[in-house]
Amino acid sequence: MERVEDLAEIVAVVRRDMQAHLGRGRVADYIPALARVDPGRFGIALVTCDGRTASAGDAQVPFSIQSISKVFTLTMALEKLGADLWRRVGREPSGSAFNSIVQLEREKGIPRNPLINAGALVVTDALLERGDPAALIGRIADFLRLQSDDPSVAIDAEVAASEADTGFRNASLANFLRANGNLHSAVDDVLRVYFNQCALSMTCVQLARAGLYLANGGRDPVSLARVTTPVRARRVNAMMMTCGHYDASGDFAFRVGLPGKSGVGGGILAIAPRRAAIAVWSPGLNPAGNSYVGQMALERLASLTGWSVF
Amino acid sequence: MERVEDLAEIVAVVRRDMQAHLGRGRVADYIPALARVDPGRFGIALVTCDGRTASAGDAQVPFSIQSISKVFTLTMALEKLGADLWRRVGREPSGSAFNSIVQLEREKGIPRNPLINAGALVVTDALLERGDPAALIGRIADFLRLQSDDPSVAIDAEVAASEADTGFRNASLANFLRANGNLHSAVDDVLRVYFNQCALSMTCVQLARAGLYLANGGRDPVSLARVTTPVRARRVNAMMMTCGHYDASGDFAFRVGLPGKSGVGGGILAIAPRRAAIAVWSPGLNPAGNSYVGQMALERLASLTGWSVF
Amino acid sequence: MERVEDLAEIVAVVRRDMQAHLGRGRVADYIPALARVDPGRFGIALVTCDGRTASAGDAQVPFSIQSISKVFTLTMALEKLGADLWRRVGREPSGSAFNSIVQLEREKGIPRNPLINAGALVVTDALLERGDPAALIGRIADFLRLQSDDPSVAIDAEVAASEADTGFRNASLANFLRANGNLHSAVDDVLRVYFNQCALSMTCVQLARAGLYLANGGRDPVSLARVTTPVRARRVNAMMMTCGHYDASGDFAFRVGLPGKSGVGGGILAIAPRRAAIAVWSPGLNPAGNSYVGQMALERLASLTGWSVF
Amino acid sequence: MERVEDLAEIVAVVRRDMQAHLGRGRVADYIPALARVDPGRFGIALVTCDGRTASAGDAQVPFSIQSISKVFTLTMALEKLGADLWRRVGREPSGSAFNSIVQLEREKGIPRNPLINAGALVVTDALLERGDPAALIGRIADFLRLQSDDPSVAIDAEVAASEADTGFRNASLANFLRANGNLHSAVDDVLRVYFNQCALSMTCVQLARAGLYLANGGRDPVSLARVTTPVRARRVNAMMMTCGHYDASGDFAFRVGLPGKSGVGGGILAIAPRRAAIAVWSPGLNPAGNSYVGQMALERLASLTGWSVF
Repeated sequence: MERVEDLAEIVAVVRRDMQAHLGRGRVADYIPALARVDPGRFGIALVTCDGRTASAGDAQVPFSIQSISKVFTLTMALEKLGADLWRRVGREPSGSAFNSIVQLEREKGIPRNPLINAGALVVTDALLERGDPAALIGRIADFLRLQSDDPSVAIDAEVAASEADTGFRNASLANFLRANGNLHSAVDDVLRVYFNQCALSMTCVQLARAGLYLANGGRDPVSLARVTTPVRARRVNAMMMTCGHYDASGDFAFRVGLPGKSGVGGGILAIAPRRAAIAVWSPGLNPAGNSYVGQMALERLASLTGWSVF
Repeated sequence: MERVEDLAEIVAVVRRDMQAHLGRGRVADYIPALARVDPGRFGIALVTCDGRTASAGDAQVPFSIQSISKVFTLTMALEKLGADLWRRVGREPSGSAFNSIVQLEREKGIPRNPLINAGALVVTDALLERGDPAALIGRIADFLRLQSDDPSVAIDAEVAASEADTGFRNASLANFLRANGNLHSAVDDVLRVYFNQCALSMTCVQLARAGLYLANGGRDPVSLARVTTPVRARRVNAMMMTCGHYDASGDFAFRVGLPGKSGVGGGILAIAPRRAAIAVWSPGLNPAGNSYVGQMALERLASLTGWSVF
Repeated sequence: MERVEDLAEIVAVVRRDMQAHLGRGRVADYIPALARVDPGRFGIALVTCDGRTASAGDAQVPFSIQSISKVFTLTMALEKLGADLWRRVGREPSGSAFNSIVQLEREKGIPRNPLINAGALVVTDALLERGDPAALIGRIADFLRLQSDDPSVAIDAEVAASEADTGFRNASLANFLRANGNLHSAVDDVLRVYFNQCALSMTCVQLARAGLYLANGGRDPVSLARVTTPVRARRVNAMMMTCGHYDASGDFAFRVGLPGKSGVGGGILAIAPRRAAIAVWSPGLNPAGNSYVGQMALERLASLTGWSVF
Repeated sequence: MERVEDLAEIVAVVRRDMQAHLGRGRVADYIPALARVDPGRFGIALVTCDGRTASAGDAQVPFSIQSISKVFTLTMALEKLGADLWRRVGREPSGSAFNSIVQLEREKGIPRNPLINAGALVVTDALLERGDPAALIGRIADFLRLQSDDPSVAIDAEVAASEADTGFRNASLANFLRANGNLHSAVDDVLRVYFNQCALSMTCVQLARAGLYLANGGRDPVSLARVTTPVRARRVNAMMMTCGHYDASGDFAFRVGLPGKSGVGGGILAIAPRRAAIAVWSPGLNPAGNSYVGQMALERLASLTGWSVF
């Protein structure tokens, strides 16, 4: 396995090679807090299963993790419900844009997978189970604090409020799920939790650290705490591989060859099984809604390290 | 790495564990030659990158490889056209049944990926390029003979003829592609090649051997011949992971964790990168059109070997 | 033209011929107030352009007009906005179930026509224009009171409240429209008006009388008041012909040959241009969501009178 | 009813008012014989139920009737099969482009209605019933000769041959129908008949005369021959109203208010029940594939005559 110096060099090379591309893509502008992020930002952090960390660029600058939170709520829901979760959500790529309601209708309210918005709403509902939204928001934040080993991880209240103000499409999905009996809690409660989990603000370093259990068979290699079972960790990774980048998941697998999950805040969490977790951040998005430079950086990293699973 | 005895034991265990399930699923019956295959058949073969082979059950009985042929024509087309191929076919999971024409219409005649029927027809057309269908059929068969290191690999003429007689859905797809300008040769010529490549008859041992270059970075580890580049081999594997099992690709990734490609003849080719190629065969299909016992066998094998890429 | 006795005989014959079919179909049960309606009810009323009325059966029993209200809000919106309304809603049959969200997505938030739920929500929003929902509810009720020449027409508060409690699908549509910029008022305000207009409770006699202006070129033939222009009246009729029965509009045109609009309460308003308006009511619905016996009664009436426009 | 002078004046006024619009729209160019038609052509003919004829412009110039032929084969199939025809084809507007294969897939090979291409192929197949294509082509041409009272009506062999050469989309539909068991004859036979019926070449005068039975309850008012029953004539008209203009049928009903059927050759046949049949021709098409000036002319005619059924 690579030495620390190698890791530091790899992230430095990736950062350097991205320099010419910074600012590419289009920053999400549906809420002010995201729209005003500097498009020239770029951060990368990787944490290995033997506990080493390397980072470069804006790796300590917090950003909105948005849909990357779905990976963590999926882990929590699998721990809570086990295989019963799959009665309410599928495991197949969607073949449609990330917030498509078409497939939801065609398939009678069973979302295609837990990493599209509709599926993540069902996952959140499964965690909420008619309970207290504030308490669940706390539990999710605590999970991220614990896994990132950093109690300072917080929810950006402005982002959460903005999401609620403009989240008509998610409100449409949630009501549709409810109409089909696949949302058990009140629509507003589920949306409240969902908007808050998306508003979690984390740095690349925190995020890579938080995802490390997925690279290590479900066990945090530093604390040695079991977060989930080896089988479930593998399955979350499989979901990320086939469904983690909306309707560009095939392209990500093709180019990068690692399980990954992107968010409209410009972050991507990628997992190199048995090796490392990697987080990148760059706010400009490609037309498919994934970080333009972030995906490029991971492609470069995979090429430098040979970590593609293929 | 496992010793030969281990490999032999592993396939023997898999075979034994499948015993109780033999006959499950529904044998494809759209052509007589497939319909009359004994549903109780089961074969498994694995060939490792260091050249060892282990097999069990009906591993020497030829079966119709059907859609598994798409993996090989894709390799050939990538060698011929390089990245230009991706102008005519996408790289995303389809989110629809394998022979769906809906997505094809929605996306103006660009098939979602090269492993669904429409995409494979485009791949075949790219190889044909208005040339002689018989010559191309010969080249495809020769490619399989070479890679399987077995000159006895042949096309089942009865199967090919039956496919032509009943292939209205493929004729529909091909005409649709032609209407959209994404088929350059005559419809009947492309269909003729396609029906013949699907009618290739191979054993598990031949098939695993033929796929070995995909486990070994594009190079045949035995002959040391370069079949394709390392990058292309990885990319074919990525396609197999995200798109290799029609609308059950996510489930296969989830359960097995290996790139794979199934055929309605009941075969599946799976790739364990840097380790081995595996072929299984059992004719009964699950509702998604993939071998019922074959997928189960690969799940068991992945569990025994820990070869899941996740 | 028929004499009064003829009209009375015609409705009597229709009623008699429906006797054997009463109770067929399935009463809408998504809200209690609808579910408990006696499925054996049947009423019919017709009012001619020269002011005569004939009725039979439960023609004086109020029922929930539900989607039939869309015809009246469409008239009001055309008077308010004129042709500008067609920038926000189309004029084509939907080819999908009445509350489908698929087409809405495919067509970027422009509903196919004003008689499906999504289109009716846009029409209501166009009438509301960020104004006071309670005032608009009052205006719609007043319109129906005026046209039916009966100040006792009222909104069933229980129905309106139940709709609001269970209207997740409409809430999904409204949020989707809002996400696409095709709803200008607050989602909850639009839904409140919509649920109230659907909860209007009217008898067959009131409903036929209220629709009479559509049979008479936009002018109430009794009061001589101009409700809308002749062109607009014709166009509302055209919409009813091509889109008035959800995904069974073609069948209704085929069997009955009159413009019509159905509601899940079991009512249908049909227009015989230049002759009469007809209202029927029978609560059991066919699988397409239209009154089973009601449609049959109109088919019989059209056959007896020769009023088919074809 | 209008006097002959009135009729002559009406068509003259329509022709005059179209003058400024001639040449608008885009001439179909998928086959050379259509592409080279002068876009400035305009003809109109109307024939009344009492046998009078009026025409203006290029009313004696033959053009390719294309999809208008579907109205006549539908009549023939209803006479042959009666209501059994509706087991194989629906009666609902399609909500999609005229040659869409999506709905066909969603609805398992049952076309939405007999006036879209897929439905017309089924109608033709129902007439063919594994018989001789040449004989059926003859019967269809004879039907048009008889109804137009003009033995000179002929099939344009160049058009028929061109359609066959470029008809990949129709070949796709036909193969899809065959794959679903809803085409009983050989695909090539059905296509041959279909391409020939579309290649019928007629003048406005011939076409209006040929459609007259539809305005007159199924009976030719001149020869007094019964072509079909009154009920079937009404039902063909109903189909034309709801489905006659592909995905612009609602707009045609809205603007013109008459049952009509258009063809890509630029012709439209419209029926004013109990009054007249009207044929217009102008080759430029609107984006929905219907004659731009032809539809405008019918809108003007309906306005001048008050013949809208609404």
